[in-house]
Amino acid sequence: MIITLKHGTSDQQMNEFIDSWKQKGFGVHVSKGENLTILGLLGDTSSLDTEMVSANPFVDTVQRVSAPYKMASRTFHPENSVIKVGNTSFGNGEIPVIAGPCSVETEEQVISIAKDVKAAGAKLLRGGAFKPRTSPYSFQGLGEKGLQFLVSAKKETGLPIVTELMDIRQLKYFDDVDVIQIGARNMQNFDLLKEMGKTGKPILLKRGMAATVKELLMSAEYIMASGNENVILCERGVRTFDNYTRNCLDVSIVPYLHKVSHLPIIIDPSHACGQRWMVPELAKAAVACNTDGLIIEVHNNPEKALCDGEQSLHPTEFAQLMKVLPQIAAINGRNV
Amino acid sequence: MIITLKHGTSDQQMNEFIDSWKQKGFGVHVSKGENLTILGLLGDTSSLDTEMVSANPFVDTVQRVSAPYKMASRTFHPENSVIKVGNTSFGNGEIPVIAGPCSVETEEQVISIAKDVKAAGAKLLRGGAFKPRTSPYSFQGLGEKGLQFLVSAKKETGLPIVTELMDIRQLKYFDDVDVIQIGARNMQNFDLLKEMGKTGKPILLKRGMAATVKELLMSAEYIMASGNENVILCERGVRTFDNYTRNCLDVSIVPYLHKVSHLPIIIDPSHACGQRWMVPELAKAAVACNTDGLIIEVHNNPEKALCDGEQSLHPTEFAQLMKVLPQIAAINGRNV
Amino acid sequence: MIITLKHGTSDQQMNEFIDSWKQKGFGVHVSKGENLTILGLLGDTSSLDTEMVSANPFVDTVQRVSAPYKMASRTFHPENSVIKVGNTSFGNGEIPVIAGPCSVETEEQVISIAKDVKAAGAKLLRGGAFKPRTSPYSFQGLGEKGLQFLVSAKKETGLPIVTELMDIRQLKYFDDVDVIQIGARNMQNFDLLKEMGKTGKPILLKRGMAATVKELLMSAEYIMASGNENVILCERGVRTFDNYTRNCLDVSIVPYLHKVSHLPIIIDPSHACGQRWMVPELAKAAVACNTDGLIIEVHNNPEKALCDGEQSLHPTEFAQLMKVLPQIAAINGRNV
Amino acid sequence: MIITLKHGTSDQQMNEFIDSWKQKGFGVHVSKGENLTILGLLGDTSSLDTEMVSANPFVDTVQRVSAPYKMASRTFHPENSVIKVGNTSFGNGEIPVIAGPCSVETEEQVISIAKDVKAAGAKLLRGGAFKPRTSPYSFQGLGEKGLQFLVSAKKETGLPIVTELMDIRQLKYFDDVDVIQIGARNMQNFDLLKEMGKTGKPILLKRGMAATVKELLMSAEYIMASGNENVILCERGVRTFDNYTRNCLDVSIVPYLHKVSHLPIIIDPSHACGQRWMVPELAKAAVACNTDGLIIEVHNNPEKALCDGEQSLHPTEFAQLMKVLPQIAAINGRNV
Repeated sequence: MIITLKHGTSDQQMNEFIDSWKQKGFGVHVSKGENLTILGLLGDTSSLDTEMVSANPFVDTVQRVSAPYKMASRTFHPENSVIKVGNTSFGNGEIPVIAGPCSVETEEQVISIAKDVKAAGAKLLRGGAFKPRTSPYSFQGLGEKGLQFLVSAKKETGLPIVTELMDIRQLKYFDDVDVIQIGARNMQNFDLLKEMGKTGKPILLKRGMAATVKELLMSAEYIMASGNENVILCERGVRTFDNYTRNCLDVSIVPYLHKVSHLPIIIDPSHACGQRWMVPELAKAAVACNTDGLIIEVHNNPEKALCDGEQSLHPTEFAQLMKVLPQIAAINGRNV
Repeated sequence: MIITLKHGTSDQQMNEFIDSWKQKGFGVHVSKGENLTILGLLGDTSSLDTEMVSANPFVDTVQRVSAPYKMASRTFHPENSVIKVGNTSFGNGEIPVIAGPCSVETEEQVISIAKDVKAAGAKLLRGGAFKPRTSPYSFQGLGEKGLQFLVSAKKETGLPIVTELMDIRQLKYFDDVDVIQIGARNMQNFDLLKEMGKTGKPILLKRGMAATVKELLMSAEYIMASGNENVILCERGVRTFDNYTRNCLDVSIVPYLHKVSHLPIIIDPSHACGQRWMVPELAKAAVACNTDGLIIEVHNNPEKALCDGEQSLHPTEFAQLMKVLPQIAAINGRNV
Repeated sequence: MIITLKHGTSDQQMNEFIDSWKQKGFGVHVSKGENLTILGLLGDTSSLDTEMVSANPFVDTVQRVSAPYKMASRTFHPENSVIKVGNTSFGNGEIPVIAGPCSVETEEQVISIAKDVKAAGAKLLRGGAFKPRTSPYSFQGLGEKGLQFLVSAKKETGLPIVTELMDIRQLKYFDDVDVIQIGARNMQNFDLLKEMGKTGKPILLKRGMAATVKELLMSAEYIMASGNENVILCERGVRTFDNYTRNCLDVSIVPYLHKVSHLPIIIDPSHACGQRWMVPELAKAAVACNTDGLIIEVHNNPEKALCDGEQSLHPTEFAQLMKVLPQIAAINGRNV
Repeated sequence: MIITLKHGTSDQQMNEFIDSWKQKGFGVHVSKGENLTILGLLGDTSSLDTEMVSANPFVDTVQRVSAPYKMASRTFHPENSVIKVGNTSFGNGEIPVIAGPCSVETEEQVISIAKDVKAAGAKLLRGGAFKPRTSPYSFQGLGEKGLQFLVSAKKETGLPIVTELMDIRQLKYFDDVDVIQIGARNMQNFDLLKEMGKTGKPILLKRGMAATVKELLMSAEYIMASGNENVILCERGVRTFDNYTRNCLDVSIVPYLHKVSHLPIIIDPSHACGQRWMVPELAKAAVACNTDGLIIEVHNNPEKALCDGEQSLHPTEFAQLMKVLPQIAAINGRNV
C-alpha cells in the first residue's frame, strides 16, 4: 500500500504516523522527494481499509500496489535510484562502462588490462576471482588471490572493482570490492540475497538464464527488503530455442524497467552473444535504447584466456568502441 | 560447392564450364563481382572430388559449403544484395522505413496515414488487407477492397506498398503491390514460398515465432532456389518463457545475418514489443546496430484500431521518432 | 454464450428459438445429448443481456464462455466427439494406432510395411507423399505418385490412410485419403484451415512447434467454424531451450485437453523424440495418461530411409511395442 | 579416460596400477562389477597417449570419454547406481514414492499426513521447512522447527524424510534428515553442490527450470567429484513458451538418463503441472516410462495449505492413485 502525505506535513507528524504503523507490525519505506513524501507499507495490507487510512488528516492519497515487488517499484519510489560508485553513478543519466577480463589470471594481466580500459574511458574494472563453471573440472578462478590482484589494479588505476561472490563464506575477502556481483545462476539463491541485503555495498544482480523480469525484480526486492537499496540490475541474455548466439540479448528490458522500476539497468553484451565481433553492435544498441551502463569483457590475449576468450574484446577493439558510444549517448542527452 | 574462377577467364570459357555442370545435373548460381567470379554448385555435391574440380585450368579455388543454405549465404555472394523498391533500396546502406496501419480500414484512413508517414520520412507504406488472426471470429481484413485502398494511397502519395499475402489464390490481386509480405505463420509454408520464387517481386519474409535463424535462411533459400533473389528478411520478435513483451526482439540477428548472408535484414519493433511506448526505444536500438530497414505500425486513431491498436504509434509520435533515427544512422555512416 | 434448454422443450419450440437467433445474425451450434440440449451462440454476444435470455420460458441456464474457442470447447459440447475412420474410432475409449513410413518411397515398401503394421495391430496406415522439408534441396516426397502407392496399400490391407496435405491445390488427389493431416508448420495457415472446414473428411491437426494449447484449439476452431467438426488433435513435441531430444514431448496436453475440449488428442512419439530407441517408452507414457491414439513411424529399413530413418521403428520393434500397449490401456479401461 | 582391466587382474596389481596414476596427479574412480573392473581417470587426460596406456599388461581396453560428465556417465559405471534409504532403494527396479506436504505447518499436520501416505504405500516422507519463495513477503517455511516436526513424523511412522536445504549454514539441523533435497533454483549453486559432496547423505538434485539435461548431469558431477556418489536426479518440469501448466513435464528425460547415466531419475508431477487433478495422469505416465521414483505433494487440507495447495493431492486421492501405479509398474517388471 502506498500512502502519499499532504504537502506541509511536519517531520514530527510523519514520524508519529510511521510509528503507528510499525506498532501494528508493518514495515514502512519512506521515499522523500522535493515536493512529495511517499510511504510504502510492507506486509500483509490486504485487510486494511483504504478509506480508513485516507481519513487521516496528513494523508493525501492511498493506493494499493498490485505488483508483487514493492520497494523495487517505481510507484513506491518515483524518482530514479542513483547508485554512486567511486566517482561515477548509475541511474543519473551517465552510462558508466565496466570492463575487464572474464577471469583474473595474473597480477600483471589485470593491471595491464585495467590501465587499458581506463585509458579508453571505462569507469569500473571487472574481473572474476570466484568463477561459476558448469563443469567441476573447469578452471574455478584464483579465489582470494584473484581478489588481491584486483585490489592491486584498483590501487594502480583508481578504478573501483566489480567481482562476483558465489557463497556467503567468501564475503570476508570482499572488503575492498566496490560492487558485489550476484551471478545469473544465483539470482534465486534467496539466502544469499538476504545476506547481500545486510552489506552496505552496491549489488550488481544479474538476470537468471530463464528468469522473467518479474522474478528479477522479486530478487532485487529480497535484497532491498533485507536493508540494501543499492541494487543495479543487469541483463545478460536469456535462453531461447535458438543457439546462434550464446544467449538472446533482451534489449526490451531497458525501456520496460525504466517504466516499472526506479533501479538502474545495465547490459552485458559479452555474455549475451558470446562472440567478440558481435559485442560492439549490441553495445551500440543498448546505449541507443538508454541502458544505464554496460559491462564488457576485455582481455589482452583473448585467444589464450582461461575462460570465455572468444567473447572478450582486445583492448584496441574496446578503445574503438568507446569512441562511438558517447556519440550515440549524446543523442539521448547522456554521457558515457 | 563454391568455385572461384581465375581472373581473366573469358565469358565463353565460363559458359562452357557452367554447361558441363548442368549436363551432369547440377544447378549453377553465378555471382559476378568486379574482380571475382564465383560459381555456386547446387545439388548433391557430396560425391564430387574437390581436387578433380580444382584441376580445371580456369578454377582458382574450390570450397565445400557446410551451411545448408547456399544462395542465401554470403560465401556464395560476397557483396550485399541490394533490393530496389521505387526510389529506395534495401541493402545499400540506406535504412528505409516502412510505416502504416496494421489493418486497412477505410480509404480515407489509409490515405491520411500514408500522407502523414510520407511527410515524416517513411519510404514505403504498409497495411494489412488479408489478416492472419488467431481466432476465426476476429476481423479478418478487408481483402481485395483493402488492397484497392492501398493502391489509392500509393497513387496519392507515390509511396510503394507492402502488404501480406496469405494464400496463393490471392496473388491475382497483387499486381500493384510493390513488396509481398510473407507472415511469421507462413514462414514454413513451403509451397507458398516456391510460388513467391516465381513472382519477380521483392518478398518481405518474416521470421517465424520460434524459427531459428538457420530456418529463416532456409525459407529464403526456398524462394531464391525457385527463381527470385529479391528477399528482404524481417525480425519481429520470438517466443520465450517471458511475456512482459508480446515477443522478444532478437536484435543480435542483425549483425549475425550481416556476417553469414548478403540479404538485407529489417526490424519490426511494433510486433516485437506490442506496446506503443516501447516502439521508439527498440527502433533506435535497431538502427544503432545497423538494421537495413524498419517496419513500424502507425495509426491515426490507435485507440479505435480494428487490430493491434495498442502497438501503433500516432503519426505525431512517428514524426518525432523519425527526427532521431537519422542522427543514430549517421554515426554508422548511413541514412534513414 | 451457452444456453441450456429445459428438459421437455419440444423440437418445434427449439427450432423457433434457434431461428430467432439466426435472424439476429448469430450462428447457433446445437449439441443434443440424451438428457440435455445445449445451444452455443456464435458471434459477438458481448452486448446480450444474460438475464433477458434467461427470461425465455424454454431456457434453463445461460452462461458466458470466456475461452476464445467455442465449438472446440467442452462447455459447448460436454460429451466426447467420436470420430469414425473405417472400422475404428477416435474419442470413444479405443486407442487406435496409426503407423507407417515417414515418406512413401516405393509401392512395395509401403505395402510391405502396411501388412506388417496391420499384423501387429495398427488400425490406420500413415505415409508422407507431400513432405514439408526445411531445405529446398531435401527429398520433397513422391507427391501424387506417393498417394497412389498409399491407396494400393489401402486396397491390399484394408487400412484407412492418413497423409499430409500442404497446399490446397493438392486436394484433388486426396479423394481416397481417409484422414487429412495438417502439419505443424501449417497449423496457422488459416486459409488452408478454412478449406479443411469445407471437406467432410477427418482432419488430423498437428500442434505447431511453439504453438500454445490455446492456439491449437483456435486453429481447430477455424476448421470447425468452417463446417467440419471431425478434428483430431495431435501433440508431436514442442521447442524448448534443450535439444537432447528433437522436440520435447508435452504429455500434459492429454489430460488438459480432456478437461477443456471434447476433441480427441493423439500423440506422435516419433517426431517428439527423434530417436528410435526412445519411441516405445514415450508411447507407453502416452497410453498411461490416456491418449486417444498414437501415430508412430515404422520403416522396414530405417537405416536407408529417405527421411527421418533414425526415428522409425523396425516392424519387429513395432510388433513388440504393440504387445505391451494394450496391457497399459487395460488398466485405464481402454483398448488399443 | 576409461580403462577396462583384464579379467584375472589381481587386487594388488590393480592397486599398484591405480597408485601409479595418482602419483601422476590423476583421480581414479573404480567401478568393480562381477566380471569387469573399470577405472575412470579424472583430470586432464588430453595429453595421454591411448596406445601407451593400452600397452600395460593388465589393460584390456582404453577409451576416451567425450561427454563432459564422467562419474555420472554410464560409460564410467555401466551398472545402475542403487541408493539405499531406510528400507527402500532407488535404482534397483523398485519405484519408491516420496509423499508429503509442500510446507511443514504443524506437528499434527505432518504426522497425520505421514500416517496417511504410509498407509497408502509411500516409502518416504517429504516436507519443506526451508522454503525457496519468489517473494520475500511469502511464507518462508518454519525452518529448524519444521525439521523437528518432520523428525517427529519419522519417529512416529518410520518413514525416512526428504527435505530441502537452501544454504550450507542450515546443514547443522539436518542430522536426522535421510535425503537432502537441492532445489531447482540452487541446481547451479556450485559451492553448495561441493558441500553436498562432503556429506555422506543421499542428495535429491532437482533439475533447474531451464537447465539442459547435460547441465543437470554436470551438477551431479560436482557432488560426485566432491566425494558423494549418492545422487538421485529429479525432473520437475521445465519452462517453455506456454503456461497452461505451471511447468512442462519432460518425461523423455527418464529413458534418456537411463541410457547415458547410471544415476536414478525420479519425477515430481506436482510441481510440473501445478494442478491437483492432473497429477495422477502424469504419475501414471512417469511409471509407464520407467521412472525410478516419484515425489508427490499430499496435504490433508489443500484449500488451506500455506504453499502450493492447488497442486497437492488429498490423502484419499493419493491412496487411490497408489492402487493404480503398481499395476503399471508390473507391466515393466517393477514394484512401486
